[in-house]
Amino acid sequence: MTVSPPPAPAPPTAPGSVLTARHPLVDGHTADAPLLAAYRGRRPAHRPVWFMRQAGRSLPEYREVRRGIGMLESCLMPDLAAEITLQPVRRHGVDAAILFSDIVVPLKLAGVDVQIVAGTGPVVASPIRTAADVAALPPLDPDALAPVAAEAAAVVAELGSTPLIGFAGAPFTLASYLVEGGPSKDHRRTKTLMHAAPDVWHALAAWVADVTGSFLRAQVLAGASAVQVFDSWAGGLSRPDYQRFVAGHSAAVFAAVADLDVPRVHFGVGTGELLTAMRDVGADVVGIDHRVPLDVASERLGGAVPIQGNIDPALLFAGRDALHAHTLDVIRRGASAPGHVLNLGHGVPPDTDPDVLTELVEFIHAQPSA
Amino acid sequence: MTVSPPPAPAPPTAPGSVLTARHPLVDGHTADAPLLAAYRGRRPAHRPVWFMRQAGRSLPEYREVRRGIGMLESCLMPDLAAEITLQPVRRHGVDAAILFSDIVVPLKLAGVDVQIVAGTGPVVASPIRTAADVAALPPLDPDALAPVAAEAAAVVAELGSTPLIGFAGAPFTLASYLVEGGPSKDHRRTKTLMHAAPDVWHALAAWVADVTGSFLRAQVLAGASAVQVFDSWAGGLSRPDYQRFVAGHSAAVFAAVADLDVPRVHFGVGTGELLTAMRDVGADVVGIDHRVPLDVASERLGGAVPIQGNIDPALLFAGRDALHAHTLDVIRRGASAPGHVLNLGHGVPPDTDPDVLTELVEFIHAQPSA
Repeated sequence: MTVSPPPAPAPPTAPGSVLTARHPLVDGHTADAPLLAAYRGRRPAHRPVWFMRQAGRSLPEYREVRRGIGMLESCLMPDLAAEITLQPVRRHGVDAAILFSDIVVPLKLAGVDVQIVAGTGPVVASPIRTAADVAALPPLDPDALAPVAAEAAAVVAELGSTPLIGFAGAPFTLASYLVEGGPSKDHRRTKTLMHAAPDVWHALAAWVADVTGSFLRAQVLAGASAVQVFDSWAGGLSRPDYQRFVAGHSAAVFAAVADLDVPRVHFGVGTGELLTAMRDVGADVVGIDHRVPLDVASERLGGAVPIQGNIDPALLFAGRDALHAHTLDVIRRGASAPGHVLNLGHGVPPDTDPDVLTELVEFIHAQPSA
Repeated sequence: MTVSPPPAPAPPTAPGSVLTARHPLVDGHTADAPLLAAYRGRRPAHRPVWFMRQAGRSLPEYREVRRGIGMLESCLMPDLAAEITLQPVRRHGVDAAILFSDIVVPLKLAGVDVQIVAGTGPVVASPIRTAADVAALPPLDPDALAPVAAEAAAVVAELGSTPLIGFAGAPFTLASYLVEGGPSKDHRRTKTLMHAAPDVWHALAAWVADVTGSFLRAQVLAGASAVQVFDSWAGGLSRPDYQRFVAGHSAAVFAAVADLDVPRVHFGVGTGELLTAMRDVGADVVGIDHRVPLDVASERLGGAVPIQGNIDPALLFAGRDALHAHTLDVIRRGASAPGHVLNLGHGVPPDTDPDVLTELVEFIHAQPSA
């Protein structure tokens, strides 16, 4: 598979326009999409399914086009990133694309020296730990988001009636990379900043929320029909800490796209304790990891919130019978929510056999939709 | 600091006696211990505190005596292991010792080829994945537990009125090492075994429960005044999977010491969804990780169960003011339970400044006990 140029017109380039002007291709093209029906609590024509990290290392065509190209570099090459975004839609027939990117892309576009190191993850050259560090963080020039808008527009032009989901990281997870300097198991420097210098923490989280909110908004204006905000590390926080230090900043990200009328999904790993708190920052849909059965999650959310999830990725390796039985259990438990989009409870493991995913999509689509 | 020989008499050595005969030093020596009062829901003379992994790499005297000696080797040298067990009691003045060991020790004593690889964790030479593998697992000869009983007896002889807590791993966590061959983030082979070959899984978990239950029983008979069972990885399971595949086997471990009248504590990381299920396997006390505030945990347990926890280990690095404020919040939230033993919400990080722990014990002991 090769990288094809996008047939769509070039994205708008006037200063600031990626954050203010809606792309002309957007209106109504995904109106009947099963994904959006479920996200809005309406009955979909068939059971929608997509997979977190569906675009990525599990696909040979991904490994082919990424060869020799760095992760963040690939995210900022609109044609390549659009091709990668589309690959799993073509191969698996999933009900949505999600923008191929990385949560640190907006930090890089703002001028932060961040790299993705293979086997490690994001590494920040100069960690942000003092009031002076925070004050020196540059504002994000909206023009810098042009490659992101171009990628989204190219994807939307190819997708037809299949929705594109916009993608962004939440302030806690992003700020933790900035404070720790890279991935951390216990987030001790981040928690130290929160508890020992809360003013500095809040200033940093507010900056991050502004940057990642702009990143998300650019994607919707370029044609994304929904958004998902990933707070990957929020599960390491107690609820009181989440409420005190995080919720307000996550709310700012959701508010950045509130006027654009797209369903907003919020997801984190190990966040069973935080489900209602994560809803309350402005999410229309809550993604559930594999630890909380969907009937329990839905009850915790008052039976009033569409949900997404939560096939255990480990079961992708357990053989078809066990995977099907588990998937039927997930569908059964999800029926208590007003809408349910099938997904994994975590990202696709890189060594997943892609044929297992394709077959799983077929199996899910063959199940009655209500 | 040097390794001192235990002043206690040699442990019983008649075949089977480590699992049947109570050590003569046991009776009544810890009757007034604050730890046991809190574990039994009675008012302690002062607020009891100990730290998971208090014996270990955070202490220079530990690094000194372990020099050149492998981890599992050290666990099976009774005098050395007893010395390591006692070090944090002497240094910090904590209210309990916990037997220095490793959860895979009983597997090794049963004849499984397992090693602790620095930087990795337990590595099993021949993973257990088939019915034939399980059938070939050897029974544990009770005589093999003699070094464990000797260690416990030596510790108890030195501790005086301070209780020793017996230590064991729960069947799911131990079995997952056997199935995966080492640590695993997603336990995919273990979950595959559970879902695709449940009979094989149950046979394996029953064998593990028998071995680890004997390991725990030997410690109590040698003088331990309480026990804690660690299901370190249980937080990766949904509650339905825990109930179906794990609970019965964990219950067998708790049953192995049920006749010995010692408080039984159960702990796992990220187990907020499982608290009542982990109580129901036979725990008298539930350990809470730092993600679930103690008032929430206690309410979830019906306000009827003594609890242990849950200072966030990350706060050990946040400075004294932030650590004290957080500790007072933990104490305040824990007041709703019928008993509360202070602890961390996870093990002591290896790079913790031991002086911070000593000061924290003093701070906790200075707080009113109810």
